[in-house]
Amino acid sequence: MSSTDSATLQHCARQIADAGRALGALGWTPATSSNFSMRLDAEHAAVTISGRDKGNLGIDDIMVVDLAGRAVGTSARPSAETALHTQIYRRFPQAGAVLHTHSRAQSVASRLFAPRGVVRFEHWELQKAIAGYTTHDSVLEVPVFANTQDMSELVRDVDAWLDAGKALHAYLIDGHGIYTWGRDMPEARRHLEALQFLLECELDLIKLRGQQP
Amino acid sequence: MSSTDSATLQHCARQIADAGRALGALGWTPATSSNFSMRLDAEHAAVTISGRDKGNLGIDDIMVVDLAGRAVGTSARPSAETALHTQIYRRFPQAGAVLHTHSRAQSVASRLFAPRGVVRFEHWELQKAIAGYTTHDSVLEVPVFANTQDMSELVRDVDAWLDAGKALHAYLIDGHGIYTWGRDMPEARRHLEALQFLLECELDLIKLRGQQP
Amino acid sequence: MSSTDSATLQHCARQIADAGRALGALGWTPATSSNFSMRLDAEHAAVTISGRDKGNLGIDDIMVVDLAGRAVGTSARPSAETALHTQIYRRFPQAGAVLHTHSRAQSVASRLFAPRGVVRFEHWELQKAIAGYTTHDSVLEVPVFANTQDMSELVRDVDAWLDAGKALHAYLIDGHGIYTWGRDMPEARRHLEALQFLLECELDLIKLRGQQP
Amino acid sequence: MSSTDSATLQHCARQIADAGRALGALGWTPATSSNFSMRLDAEHAAVTISGRDKGNLGIDDIMVVDLAGRAVGTSARPSAETALHTQIYRRFPQAGAVLHTHSRAQSVASRLFAPRGVVRFEHWELQKAIAGYTTHDSVLEVPVFANTQDMSELVRDVDAWLDAGKALHAYLIDGHGIYTWGRDMPEARRHLEALQFLLECELDLIKLRGQQP
Repeated sequence: MSSTDSATLQHCARQIADAGRALGALGWTPATSSNFSMRLDAEHAAVTISGRDKGNLGIDDIMVVDLAGRAVGTSARPSAETALHTQIYRRFPQAGAVLHTHSRAQSVASRLFAPRGVVRFEHWELQKAIAGYTTHDSVLEVPVFANTQDMSELVRDVDAWLDAGKALHAYLIDGHGIYTWGRDMPEARRHLEALQFLLECELDLIKLRGQQP
Repeated sequence: MSSTDSATLQHCARQIADAGRALGALGWTPATSSNFSMRLDAEHAAVTISGRDKGNLGIDDIMVVDLAGRAVGTSARPSAETALHTQIYRRFPQAGAVLHTHSRAQSVASRLFAPRGVVRFEHWELQKAIAGYTTHDSVLEVPVFANTQDMSELVRDVDAWLDAGKALHAYLIDGHGIYTWGRDMPEARRHLEALQFLLECELDLIKLRGQQP
Repeated sequence: MSSTDSATLQHCARQIADAGRALGALGWTPATSSNFSMRLDAEHAAVTISGRDKGNLGIDDIMVVDLAGRAVGTSARPSAETALHTQIYRRFPQAGAVLHTHSRAQSVASRLFAPRGVVRFEHWELQKAIAGYTTHDSVLEVPVFANTQDMSELVRDVDAWLDAGKALHAYLIDGHGIYTWGRDMPEARRHLEALQFLLECELDLIKLRGQQP
Repeated sequence: MSSTDSATLQHCARQIADAGRALGALGWTPATSSNFSMRLDAEHAAVTISGRDKGNLGIDDIMVVDLAGRAVGTSARPSAETALHTQIYRRFPQAGAVLHTHSRAQSVASRLFAPRGVVRFEHWELQKAIAGYTTHDSVLEVPVFANTQDMSELVRDVDAWLDAGKALHAYLIDGHGIYTWGRDMPEARRHLEALQFLLECELDLIKLRGQQP
C-alpha cells in the first residue's frame, strides 16, 4: 500500500473508533457484531479487524485491505463481511465511509419486511437527511436481502439491485442489520441516524395501526 | 440592529445552545433537523443558523433576524423555517422563546393524527404544565398541519387557526415535528417536555387499547 | 417545631434531594410534577416546597409541616398534595418516607385500569420487593382513585380503602401518577422501583396479548 | 477452602462487581434482585451475598461456597438461589461464570412463553453470539421453567432437561428472570447481552405481527 500514507490511515482509524464508540453506546453493536470502514484511496480501505469489541475500538483494531478485500501489510483477518464494504467502494466512487450496525429496530424491521423485500419510506421530513433528497414528497426504498453466511451471495444481490438501475442508499439483511454509507464519515453517520429514526417510526406506526406491511 | 445590545444576544444564544444540547441528548433533534429561537426585542429574534448540529451549538451558530425573517448584520442564512418562528413572535407579543423539535413520538403522532387534523388531550394531570391550565378537567388541542417545503403555506395554516379564534400553544406538522413556545426559555422547555410526555402517553394508550384515533 | 432538631431536618432534606435527582434522571418527574417527603418525628414531616424542580432539589427546597399539613417555621407554601403525604404518616405509624412520581407507565396504567379501579399483580417474582411479601404466589392490589384538584376527596378515598380493612402499599391517581411509601427512604425507593417495573411489565403483557384489562 | 488462593477470589470478586455495576446500570437488576457467581476451582465458587444491591457490589459482598452451596470460611448467607449456580458448575465442567438477571424483557417473555415451556429462536444473525453457533440457520431453544420459592424444584427441572439430552445455554423462570453462563465472565456477559437482544426482538415481532406465540 505504498500509495497510502500512514497519516491518512491514522486519521481514518480514529474516525472509525469514534463512530464505534458512539454507535456502541446507543446499543447498535450488540455482542461484537457490526463493522465499519473508510476509503483510504482509489484502491484501499481501512476496516475493523474481525471479532473486536466494536464499542471500544483502538487504532490497533483497524487494518488495511485492497478493494478485493485482501489484507495489506498485516497478517490480521478482516471482518467476515469486508467483501460488502469493498463492493460499496467499487460501485460508488464517491463513497468514503461504510457503516454496518445491528440495532434492534434494524433487526426487527428486516424480519418484518423480508417477505416484501423492501422498506418503502414516504411522507417523512427526515428523508431529507439522505443525500439528494430535498423534500418529504419523495420515495426512499431500502431493500431487504436474504441472510446468508456466504458473502458472495449478498454481493450478487447488491450487484443485481444496482444493475437494475435502482437507487441504493442502504440495505437491510434479514434477521441481521443494516449497511449504509456516505461521502465521508459524518455523512455516513447522518444517513445511519436518519435510517434508524425512520425504521423506528415505521415500526411504531405499524404497532399503532395494527396493520402489517 | 442598533436597538439590541450584544449582551442580550449573548445571553439568548447561550440559552439556545443549552436547550439544543439538552434536547439533542434526548434524541429529539436527529440528523441536523430542529431549530430554536429567542426574542431579542420588539423587532428582532436570535435564531439558529441553517444546517448546524442542533445538539452541539455554539454562540457562532446563532444569528439575528428581524420579525420578517431577514438576516440582520450577517451574511449567514437563517434556518429554512425561520418564518414560522417570527410568525409566533408577531402573533404572540408575550412569546419569548420558540422550540421546534423532531422526536420520534412527535413524528409518529403527527402521521397518526393527521387525518383528524388535531390531537386532543383530556384527563391528564400534566395538562397543568401548559400556561393557563389549572386542572386535568380541561381540553388541550394541538393542531396537525400538512407538511410542505413552502413555509408560506404553513404560515397561512397557523394564521387561519388563530384567526378562527382558537387557542394555540403548539402545533404538529405531518411527518415532521412540533413547534411550541413560551414566555421565556424555561417555559418553552416546560411546554415541550409536557407535550412530549402527553404525546407518548396517548400513543401508548392507543397501542394498549388497540383503537385508532 | 421545637421538638425536631435541625440535624434531623438536614439529614432528611438531603435524602429527599438525592431521591429527587435520581427519580428526575429516570424521567419520572416531568415538568415540575411530583413531590416527596420524610417523617421528622411523631408530629412533623419534611416536604418539598410547591413548584420547585424536583430533579434538582436543594436543602432550601424542603420545608417542615405538621401532620395536618400546616407550614411550621416558614412562610413557604408546601406542595399542593401535602395532605396526601401527611395522611400516610397519620395512618401508617411505621411510614418514614412518601414518594409521589409521575412516570409515563404510571400515568398510562392509571388511565387504562381506572375503569376497573385497581391494578392486580400476580405471579411476579418482584412482588417480593414489597415489604411483607415472601412469594410470587401472592396478590398485590394497587387501587386507582379518580383524579381531582380537591385533595380532600383523595384523602376520603384513601381513608375509605383503609377503613374497609384492605391492604395498601401504594395507589395510583387516574391520569396522574403514583404514591408509595416505606419505613425509610431506601424502602420507599425500593417499593417505587418495584412498582414501576411491575406496571411496565403488565402494560407490556397487555400489548403482547392484545387483551385489555 | 485451602486449595483456593485469595488472589483468585479477589480477581473473581472484582469481575462480579464490575458485571453487577454494568448490568445494574442497564436496569436488569431491579430492587436487589439478581445474583452472580464465578467458579474458583473444581470445588468452589464465589457468589453474591444475599440481599445486597447488585448494581453497587464491593469485594465484601462476595462470598465463597462449595459446589453443594454451603458457605466456606464465612458466616454470611449466600443468595437464596445459590443452588442454581452450583448446579451449573457441577453439570458444566467448562462453565466459569453464571449470571442471573431480571430485566423487563426477561420477565415479560417468561410470562408470555411459559404456557409453551420454551422460547425458540430462529433466523437471527445474533444466535452466532452463543458459543457453538456459527450460522443464523440454526435453532436456539431456551426453556421456561415454572417459578417456585423451593430451589430444589428448579434444580430438578434443569436436571430433567439436561438428562433428556437437550442443549442448554440459558433458561428462563416464569415471572422472574434468566440464568445464563459461559466459560468465563466475558463469555457469560456476551451470552446475556445476546439473549436480552433476542428476547427484545421476539417480543417486538409479536407486537408488530399481533400473533401470540
